[in-house]
Amino acid sequence: MTNERTYSYLGPAGTFTEVALAQVPEAQGQTWKPVANVAQALADVTDGTSTGAILAIENTVDGGVSSVQDALAKSQGLRIVGEYLVPVSFVLVAPRGTRLDQVVDIAAHPVAYAQCLEWLGANIPGHTHVIAGSNVASAIGVLDGSLPAQAAIAAPGVVKHYDVDVLAEGIGDNADAVTRFVFVTRAVAPPAPTGSDKTSLIVELPREVPGALLEMLEQFATRGINLSLIQSRPIGDRLGRYRFIIDADGHIEDERMADALMGLKRFSPNVLFLGSYPRADRERVHPEPRYSDASFAAAREWLRGLRTP
Amino acid sequence: MTNERTYSYLGPAGTFTEVALAQVPEAQGQTWKPVANVAQALADVTDGTSTGAILAIENTVDGGVSSVQDALAKSQGLRIVGEYLVPVSFVLVAPRGTRLDQVVDIAAHPVAYAQCLEWLGANIPGHTHVIAGSNVASAIGVLDGSLPAQAAIAAPGVVKHYDVDVLAEGIGDNADAVTRFVFVTRAVAPPAPTGSDKTSLIVELPREVPGALLEMLEQFATRGINLSLIQSRPIGDRLGRYRFIIDADGHIEDERMADALMGLKRFSPNVLFLGSYPRADRERVHPEPRYSDASFAAAREWLRGLRTP
Amino acid sequence: MTNERTYSYLGPAGTFTEVALAQVPEAQGQTWKPVANVAQALADVTDGTSTGAILAIENTVDGGVSSVQDALAKSQGLRIVGEYLVPVSFVLVAPRGTRLDQVVDIAAHPVAYAQCLEWLGANIPGHTHVIAGSNVASAIGVLDGSLPAQAAIAAPGVVKHYDVDVLAEGIGDNADAVTRFVFVTRAVAPPAPTGSDKTSLIVELPREVPGALLEMLEQFATRGINLSLIQSRPIGDRLGRYRFIIDADGHIEDERMADALMGLKRFSPNVLFLGSYPRADRERVHPEPRYSDASFAAAREWLRGLRTP
Amino acid sequence: MTNERTYSYLGPAGTFTEVALAQVPEAQGQTWKPVANVAQALADVTDGTSTGAILAIENTVDGGVSSVQDALAKSQGLRIVGEYLVPVSFVLVAPRGTRLDQVVDIAAHPVAYAQCLEWLGANIPGHTHVIAGSNVASAIGVLDGSLPAQAAIAAPGVVKHYDVDVLAEGIGDNADAVTRFVFVTRAVAPPAPTGSDKTSLIVELPREVPGALLEMLEQFATRGINLSLIQSRPIGDRLGRYRFIIDADGHIEDERMADALMGLKRFSPNVLFLGSYPRADRERVHPEPRYSDASFAAAREWLRGLRTP
Repeated sequence: MTNERTYSYLGPAGTFTEVALAQVPEAQGQTWKPVANVAQALADVTDGTSTGAILAIENTVDGGVSSVQDALAKSQGLRIVGEYLVPVSFVLVAPRGTRLDQVVDIAAHPVAYAQCLEWLGANIPGHTHVIAGSNVASAIGVLDGSLPAQAAIAAPGVVKHYDVDVLAEGIGDNADAVTRFVFVTRAVAPPAPTGSDKTSLIVELPREVPGALLEMLEQFATRGINLSLIQSRPIGDRLGRYRFIIDADGHIEDERMADALMGLKRFSPNVLFLGSYPRADRERVHPEPRYSDASFAAAREWLRGLRTP
Repeated sequence: MTNERTYSYLGPAGTFTEVALAQVPEAQGQTWKPVANVAQALADVTDGTSTGAILAIENTVDGGVSSVQDALAKSQGLRIVGEYLVPVSFVLVAPRGTRLDQVVDIAAHPVAYAQCLEWLGANIPGHTHVIAGSNVASAIGVLDGSLPAQAAIAAPGVVKHYDVDVLAEGIGDNADAVTRFVFVTRAVAPPAPTGSDKTSLIVELPREVPGALLEMLEQFATRGINLSLIQSRPIGDRLGRYRFIIDADGHIEDERMADALMGLKRFSPNVLFLGSYPRADRERVHPEPRYSDASFAAAREWLRGLRTP
Repeated sequence: MTNERTYSYLGPAGTFTEVALAQVPEAQGQTWKPVANVAQALADVTDGTSTGAILAIENTVDGGVSSVQDALAKSQGLRIVGEYLVPVSFVLVAPRGTRLDQVVDIAAHPVAYAQCLEWLGANIPGHTHVIAGSNVASAIGVLDGSLPAQAAIAAPGVVKHYDVDVLAEGIGDNADAVTRFVFVTRAVAPPAPTGSDKTSLIVELPREVPGALLEMLEQFATRGINLSLIQSRPIGDRLGRYRFIIDADGHIEDERMADALMGLKRFSPNVLFLGSYPRADRERVHPEPRYSDASFAAAREWLRGLRTP
Repeated sequence: MTNERTYSYLGPAGTFTEVALAQVPEAQGQTWKPVANVAQALADVTDGTSTGAILAIENTVDGGVSSVQDALAKSQGLRIVGEYLVPVSFVLVAPRGTRLDQVVDIAAHPVAYAQCLEWLGANIPGHTHVIAGSNVASAIGVLDGSLPAQAAIAAPGVVKHYDVDVLAEGIGDNADAVTRFVFVTRAVAPPAPTGSDKTSLIVELPREVPGALLEMLEQFATRGINLSLIQSRPIGDRLGRYRFIIDADGHIEDERMADALMGLKRFSPNVLFLGSYPRADRERVHPEPRYSDASFAAAREWLRGLRTP
């Protein structure tokens, strides 16, 4: 029997993204395709090469991953259908036989490097940073000599694929660091509500409305909807113009969320609905009674009675 | 041919309310029934004695007429279907032969008295006030001696019905004073929108929500709806609890108004829809494009597409 | 020893206002002067005839007393320095020997009449209402024949001053009805804060600011100040223009209240500070820590440090 | 005569940062010190090695420069005292004699690479990206062979320092791209207001307040202050917790700004004032009259009069 479906992820094998993909039920036993960049992963889904793609979207230390946010903002016909959390920890690896006191130059992806600054300052104070393209490419570069470094900051999974010595483990500055990944497919009807759902949006602020950000936030507040992520990104045409990346608690099939979406649509020149999907942490959303589906249905019924008594 | 319909108004003949009734097209050529109080007028409509009733609801000087507001708040099965404006001016009348310098005691309805204080202070500084039940009863009481006064503040129309001398005209302190009347019938579907409409409501604030008044106002503000009247009235169970009498620009058939009404219904323990009806001043309501019916329809269509791509 | 000070109240003796005056510590053992109307009471204070005046400002059933609110709105050089609560109950009185079944016409002050409608409807269904000027004048009018009625709705205190039979007691529709009185003197520095204080204001909304009411409320909300009274009154120049009568929890010497007052002053064309004074119910105000005096002082200190590091 | 002062900038010579430093009046004719990273530049100022440092803080395409924002968020004793704008354009350079059709591998700083994607897609479709540390290091790496690439994306200024051929000019996707730089010194009193000023802040949202972002924005809105930059950055302790980088129109010596700063201080667990300084674009700020210094002064005077009449 052949594998029927392909899933793209930011490679190479051994990255945290691969760990996230391992959590996606429908991807198990299928083909996993490592790709070089976010645009490639999304293009694979758009053109049908892959059924889905998994992408890091936010991490505890560095916040939203702007390249992914920007790529999604420009995408069409895609949907987030699930999210997955991966605890992030880092190891310092080197070719067999290397001792820590021999290390001066360290290969690392910039995001990983930024998360290990305290450990490095305490343990290798005089080091230099050699930029690598991923948390696995750092190790490969040290092993094959293509990066001028004696050791690499890498994802723990790298030891399964490459023959390295681990000089130190858990060198990240935040022991609870987590990266959030989203699983993206072609646009389909959202998965059914579970009572523990999240809705992702990209909302552009109108140019001419003063207090536009306040007004946008009120679209959620007046429907009792909590936001778990709000991140500004420049639209790119001039300084001071923003779109906002938003994760809101609830599902498009919840009446209050549908109502908020319509409110945003009327307000914003550009709202991109990225998807409604189950939350990774399975925490249930408990709206106040006045924002419940029953409350919306009752109000609609009442209005109907007023119009034709 | 007999008159088929009866209309109730706060009498007696000669009051400003009768002037307002003369503006109501469907009441022309029908029976006009003067009644003694607001409750009677509304009861006539409820029990079918009258087809409609006309009531003063607001005046420039004294604000909302609280007895009418409270009566409407407790009513059921009634609707405001029209509004009419009557310029308010007052005359000082007395039995034939009376001279102004003979006047010390002045019969007047309290609201009328309050609107003539400046003139009285300047022209009859030492006067006393004898309370009368209406702007016509004041004159009757002076004529038949049942009120201990030499002159009466009355509506100009009183001279058509009673044999009096007019000692002074236009004695009201505000030359532009206007009283607004509403025309009430049994609950029917609201008259069709005209583009220049008003919606009247009574909204009770929830007890447990801090900032409840702010939240109520936001229901209108977030839909671009202007309020031309907002008046608090105590609910009556304890100090500090209010309901609000509201006139909002627009019609229940306008999408933004229907949306706001549903928002209020979800928020408030008690919303009374009093009616949507053409504005007396015929001023057109121009919502911003994003609050237009087209904008609402487009947002609903967009939402539908998101749910089933 | 002669009395040195005079206090004005809305008379005659026996009204609820006299009961309120009996609660004012500094008025005990002094001269109490009954006056015929609110303007007279305020004028007595302004011209020095009286040291203070006591006035009904709000009641459970009918809300703010608009004549008093309007008189205060036009006053100058006056201050509210205290408030007092009087439970309101009504008795039906008549000349000695009258039986309830002989009563058809009932003399009553309109506010009192409005509070007894349920009892009257149940016990004297066919009655008529004869308007009286106060809750004592009703009884006097019945006794001396100047009002064409067989019985009067009166304050319970009337039995101490007049020879009447009490036909029924506790005839008010709301057993917990309370009237709030304010004690007014010439403008002085406000009494020292007690931790349980109230500030009374009259705020005119600016004409040109859309959402002006929302903005006014935010002046309080953004400083954590609760409002126990908010009542609209027409300014009187045209329909739709309002001033608001406000009671806010706290004292002008509280930092948050001083800050809110300055915010209102900048926003409104006309703010009238009526006074800060101890609450009648002695309930303490507990601001959130961020709105405490300490928080304001710390922020001011911080700002000073930023300006001159 | 020796140079007395040193200014640090993100080197090497030829970067846009050096172009920005060339705009700083007080740095002309002094020593310019290229440094390897942001932390070094700030440390130079803190420890007195340098009098000032210049740092890229925001660009049209990629938004706030998060490494600089985070470094400032953790700094102490520093102040922004000026801002400078540099139009950003890119050139493709290579060793003398290279032809465009020989280029496959392109060395580029990731931010520069991201801004040239369209040109690259159209002109060198099969290229690969080799990461470089700056817009000058890319060219150096190609020249000295330390980076495996045939051409480099570089700042135009590179041609003044290195012997390269320019294969293409103006290859950035946005012809109007601009980068904003801030000039940082040790904490001093802010430069005097010019009427065209900006205030930079970092504000942490309190954990326990629902609607905290709305409340923070209201601190500005209720004082009529416009924001030209608002950017969220994770605090880093767990997902969903943010601080906000803010540029607000106005100066700490403006009354409304001082008032807003104190409001933020009371609200937020952590407000970092980065400085008030003249705007690079010299656009004047025109507050509404009610937010003017005169309005604040008048309100303060009024309050004083209320307290001691």
